[in-house]
Amino acid sequence: MIFASDNWAGASEKVMAALAEQAKRGGPAYGDDLLTKLVERRFAEIFERKVAVFFVATGTAANALSLAAYSQPGAVAFCHREAHVIADEPGSAELFGGVRLIGLPGEAGKIATETLERALARFPEGNAHHGRPVAITLSELTELGAAYTPAEIGALTAVAKRRGLRVHMDGARFASAVAGLDVSPADLTWRAGVDILSFGGTKNGCLAAEAVIFFEPADANGFALARQRAGHTFSKSWFVAAQLDAYLDHGHWLDLAGGANATARRLADAIATSPEARLVREPDGNEVFVILSKALDHRLRAAGAVYHPWSVESLAEEERPAADEVLIRLIASFSTAGEDVDRFAAVVAGTRDQKSVIGNQ
Amino acid sequence: MIFASDNWAGASEKVMAALAEQAKRGGPAYGDDLLTKLVERRFAEIFERKVAVFFVATGTAANALSLAAYSQPGAVAFCHREAHVIADEPGSAELFGGVRLIGLPGEAGKIATETLERALARFPEGNAHHGRPVAITLSELTELGAAYTPAEIGALTAVAKRRGLRVHMDGARFASAVAGLDVSPADLTWRAGVDILSFGGTKNGCLAAEAVIFFEPADANGFALARQRAGHTFSKSWFVAAQLDAYLDHGHWLDLAGGANATARRLADAIATSPEARLVREPDGNEVFVILSKALDHRLRAAGAVYHPWSVESLAEEERPAADEVLIRLIASFSTAGEDVDRFAAVVAGTRDQKSVIGNQ
Amino acid sequence: MIFASDNWAGASEKVMAALAEQAKRGGPAYGDDLLTKLVERRFAEIFERKVAVFFVATGTAANALSLAAYSQPGAVAFCHREAHVIADEPGSAELFGGVRLIGLPGEAGKIATETLERALARFPEGNAHHGRPVAITLSELTELGAAYTPAEIGALTAVAKRRGLRVHMDGARFASAVAGLDVSPADLTWRAGVDILSFGGTKNGCLAAEAVIFFEPADANGFALARQRAGHTFSKSWFVAAQLDAYLDHGHWLDLAGGANATARRLADAIATSPEARLVREPDGNEVFVILSKALDHRLRAAGAVYHPWSVESLAEEERPAADEVLIRLIASFSTAGEDVDRFAAVVAGTRDQKSVIGNQ
Amino acid sequence: MIFASDNWAGASEKVMAALAEQAKRGGPAYGDDLLTKLVERRFAEIFERKVAVFFVATGTAANALSLAAYSQPGAVAFCHREAHVIADEPGSAELFGGVRLIGLPGEAGKIATETLERALARFPEGNAHHGRPVAITLSELTELGAAYTPAEIGALTAVAKRRGLRVHMDGARFASAVAGLDVSPADLTWRAGVDILSFGGTKNGCLAAEAVIFFEPADANGFALARQRAGHTFSKSWFVAAQLDAYLDHGHWLDLAGGANATARRLADAIATSPEARLVREPDGNEVFVILSKALDHRLRAAGAVYHPWSVESLAEEERPAADEVLIRLIASFSTAGEDVDRFAAVVAGTRDQKSVIGNQ
Repeated sequence: MIFASDNWAGASEKVMAALAEQAKRGGPAYGDDLLTKLVERRFAEIFERKVAVFFVATGTAANALSLAAYSQPGAVAFCHREAHVIADEPGSAELFGGVRLIGLPGEAGKIATETLERALARFPEGNAHHGRPVAITLSELTELGAAYTPAEIGALTAVAKRRGLRVHMDGARFASAVAGLDVSPADLTWRAGVDILSFGGTKNGCLAAEAVIFFEPADANGFALARQRAGHTFSKSWFVAAQLDAYLDHGHWLDLAGGANATARRLADAIATSPEARLVREPDGNEVFVILSKALDHRLRAAGAVYHPWSVESLAEEERPAADEVLIRLIASFSTAGEDVDRFAAVVAGTRDQKSVIGNQ
Repeated sequence: MIFASDNWAGASEKVMAALAEQAKRGGPAYGDDLLTKLVERRFAEIFERKVAVFFVATGTAANALSLAAYSQPGAVAFCHREAHVIADEPGSAELFGGVRLIGLPGEAGKIATETLERALARFPEGNAHHGRPVAITLSELTELGAAYTPAEIGALTAVAKRRGLRVHMDGARFASAVAGLDVSPADLTWRAGVDILSFGGTKNGCLAAEAVIFFEPADANGFALARQRAGHTFSKSWFVAAQLDAYLDHGHWLDLAGGANATARRLADAIATSPEARLVREPDGNEVFVILSKALDHRLRAAGAVYHPWSVESLAEEERPAADEVLIRLIASFSTAGEDVDRFAAVVAGTRDQKSVIGNQ
Repeated sequence: MIFASDNWAGASEKVMAALAEQAKRGGPAYGDDLLTKLVERRFAEIFERKVAVFFVATGTAANALSLAAYSQPGAVAFCHREAHVIADEPGSAELFGGVRLIGLPGEAGKIATETLERALARFPEGNAHHGRPVAITLSELTELGAAYTPAEIGALTAVAKRRGLRVHMDGARFASAVAGLDVSPADLTWRAGVDILSFGGTKNGCLAAEAVIFFEPADANGFALARQRAGHTFSKSWFVAAQLDAYLDHGHWLDLAGGANATARRLADAIATSPEARLVREPDGNEVFVILSKALDHRLRAAGAVYHPWSVESLAEEERPAADEVLIRLIASFSTAGEDVDRFAAVVAGTRDQKSVIGNQ
Repeated sequence: MIFASDNWAGASEKVMAALAEQAKRGGPAYGDDLLTKLVERRFAEIFERKVAVFFVATGTAANALSLAAYSQPGAVAFCHREAHVIADEPGSAELFGGVRLIGLPGEAGKIATETLERALARFPEGNAHHGRPVAITLSELTELGAAYTPAEIGALTAVAKRRGLRVHMDGARFASAVAGLDVSPADLTWRAGVDILSFGGTKNGCLAAEAVIFFEPADANGFALARQRAGHTFSKSWFVAAQLDAYLDHGHWLDLAGGANATARRLADAIATSPEARLVREPDGNEVFVILSKALDHRLRAAGAVYHPWSVESLAEEERPAADEVLIRLIASFSTAGEDVDRFAAVVAGTRDQKSVIGNQ
């Protein structure tokens, strides 16, 4: 019953098979191999335009190098104050790009347009004394499991573009958002004003497969060396390419994400029926935020469920748990076993099955 | 006939099998998995002491983060002027640690003790106006394929330690050196005064498996966050651990390196018999530097051999190729096919077989 | 009628006389001169303990280098969200120390202890995944002209020290605070838990005289080279020393600050009597924050008064100006002319004098 | 008898008088004052073209920020291996711009065109794997007191421009070079291909007056914030402007430099007549490099002469001092007393006067 994170999962069989096949052959180093080119073409098809693609080792690297691509001395970038880039990537944007991050409040991990406008007002145009706003970064999914719609993204990017800011999307769970919203990847990104995307595969069936995708390839000038400097140019580039080639093939990535989302839905449904728990909000993807009684929390953990408590500061004052409650995060992955969900539901429901499960531990 | 680099090779079957097995299971993120702990223990056995081990994505990251671990404002580190760290890792040591690199000359890619002493003399003790020497970094193998002996390393580290410098070893081809010298890993590192090692697996049968090894674990305090900041903390740490677990098991790493070294030896032997080519020096590992006639170079390339020309500035004036000659580098990997070596030797020898090979291309 | 900033003022006669005298002689470069040593001794007397003193060119440099002195990879430092270090020093702390700044809310530009505690709670001890809190920085005066009392400082530093954080004070207007509170410099700093001080002279009668003062000289190890690297080691160090020698002599610095504070008091008194204006709060030093009618604002500017509007986001919602009002900042310096204050008061009072003044412009 | 450095001198009377006058008045902060604009116009006249001018605190800052202005990730800049920027500014170019410096050999502190070409050959065009050459930096005067002629500069910049590199000049002693060569500032800089100049006033009669001068003002876009980030934006900008206004007025800067050069010439003449000493080369400006017997060195120091020994590695093997000799550097400043030169000459000549001087010490 592992609901701790989707990065606790293994890798999809299809992805591993492709990797094993390529590993027999190897190929030219540093991205000069055929498979790397093929993956670039796949991304172009998926996003319905020419793109520039760069593999990196982690989502942190993807985010920080993305922001750095648009940085200048005194650069400032805006993110949600819960965003991974500010909450879990300590010093990365600063190191790679000298970018100062400003965290903004907002419900469900989303930034509202007025909030962005107010933040920008502190940096009057033509007066760089306070810093130079260069970018905003949006998480899709957000850190509270919500998905920005294309319209929401478009509204935010419009505010950003009026001030000449570039727009980055942290797509660690991009697949989950696309599958959840059932929109095209293009509509969710460049057609809504996104300039650069951290495209994550690791949390959804790959071993380590993260890519920076420039929707305006000319912006990528200089990025190859920035990546090399950061130690993120894999010599065996095909090892990422082989994963992504299989991952993107015939919509495998969306199948995996759709599966995880459905599992999350089932977890949410189990919660919805319980008098001891409530959803913070309906899940848009594979993450479920739940306020539950300490008693239920105890029973779940005793039954072997693994998940993380979450900071109540993510919620508005009125949403926060009572004294005998806790806020937790449940994450489903492509490989979460159906029977684990059954067991979870049984514990939540307080049925006999659950007790027997404990006995069998 | 690929002799371009050992990073053009695939991965060893044993390594891939272990990885595929673990990928079915996954595990706790960020290094909290069992396999990561096991690999740390394996390294302790191999090096005959407690060590602190950190996986990173690339050798560049390993080197730059290693040097950064001992850096301070105004820090200066010394390397051979052909070293990968200065010749192929542009800006990395500066980015991660603010370390200024000073390249020193030296035969066969090695730094001589007198050269180091002379370089240090420009930084008088107690006067930091010119910078603060903090470290030397040695490549084992060197960039000209030579292996420092434990005695040579000890002599250099003694000079360094007298001035309070730390010693880093770039072990991108550490396995090749250990196999070639037939010494213990401990004798080649900490017993000879090495403080920190970039241990490379990628060039010798892994997909992407590089580790920073601190021989004094207390020095590693703070490194975990430095690595995270640099985007080099894999969430699925077990994906590196699974590779290294198999790689280190029952001396697999040395078997692979021994095989590559033997192949390099065969390439060198083929050269040694030719009137059109000569070895720059006897290989200590899996790299062979050769000066050959342009005619032979042409025949080899026509026959399908792939290898890199090399900069003549690596050699002393008197060693350099004549006008009708070129300097090349041949690298053997664990997976170089014996028949490729046969074909190479046949072309060098100018026998009929070679012609028929061309005909069959 | 210049109330724009105290850095619009010239230099005190005594300071300039001392500088002119020393400029005839010159002296050994890079701080080896006698005067630099004398100033270090003066600071030791003023702070009643041994200190390490380093001159730098600007307050921004003093702040960023101070924070850098206690930094590590992934470092986080807390400041008020209006603090100069975060609002007006874009990218400096990041550049010099890789420090990520987190801005906290708080009345009158002060951080409350509970606010700091809540912020620290996001960084659980023993888990550096979110970053490593290393320091807090307090502005004395704050950016809203308030002075922390020694007791307030002590309460904040106690919270910080429990978590091992170091405490920096941005003393761009330290003289004004000392004069306003009538406390000893030692009580306001190290005795209250401050580790390092940006001591500003520029805003109070010097040309360019800023110093970083370490209250624990051992902490300063390495700082000289950090300063040199940043280009902040003046070769003619005596040019700062001469200014500070005169500035600190016989309490000249406090006389200057006391004068400016008294002038600010007179400005505040003029406001207090007006039906068209009100003080945001009583001034503690030489800064006066005022909400006044747009009509009065217009009359003052027409009469030649120069001052800056201020961001209403500095104030709590309920304190903010109404639609026909504006928030402004008035700053008095050591050299603000008494007659300028008289004219200002006359315009505020709407007396005839004011009209004639306009006529004479 | 201070010949240690020109940065041991005081300030010129004219410069100090102008500063004292302005200090009575003050002015708008951060460069919005009239005097700062006037100085920008003066530079435009002197260089016979529109320029963008930025004051900074030190020559180190001027150099590092200049190089940073043309930097990119993986940037490499070439300098002479004795250049101040690499020998005395530890980590600065790396900190401000991520620039890796490569030191090149060359007689008299000058880089030869072939040397630059050879260095560039290690960075093949279209292959950034080894780094991205972005700039060269020339010292005028060089660190061995020589002046590049406009023709020499033009030849070097032609090589650089063919590869798209920008050209920086470290003009810490620019005045001395202009006075010594008797050429126009324009001919020595932009007409010969220089893009950006560190213009130094501190060593030639100012207190602290260094400026970065862009010959192509469009290149300066973004520099203001880079300077602010580095803590090099003086609030009382007029304090530098006042110095430079007087310094540049009616050729005062060249009068001061001409005087220092003439003094250096007299020191060189004194050496030339001695059997115990010889010039390393004829001085082009205000620096004299001398090899003298240890006996004479001892007599000079006993008589009160202050100067620095110099590293013999600056010289070719065949130029170096013998075992009983030392290499020293003598520097004359605008304020070096004629009688100090007389005394120096007398000690060198071994005349009675010298003995009596010792007796009077």
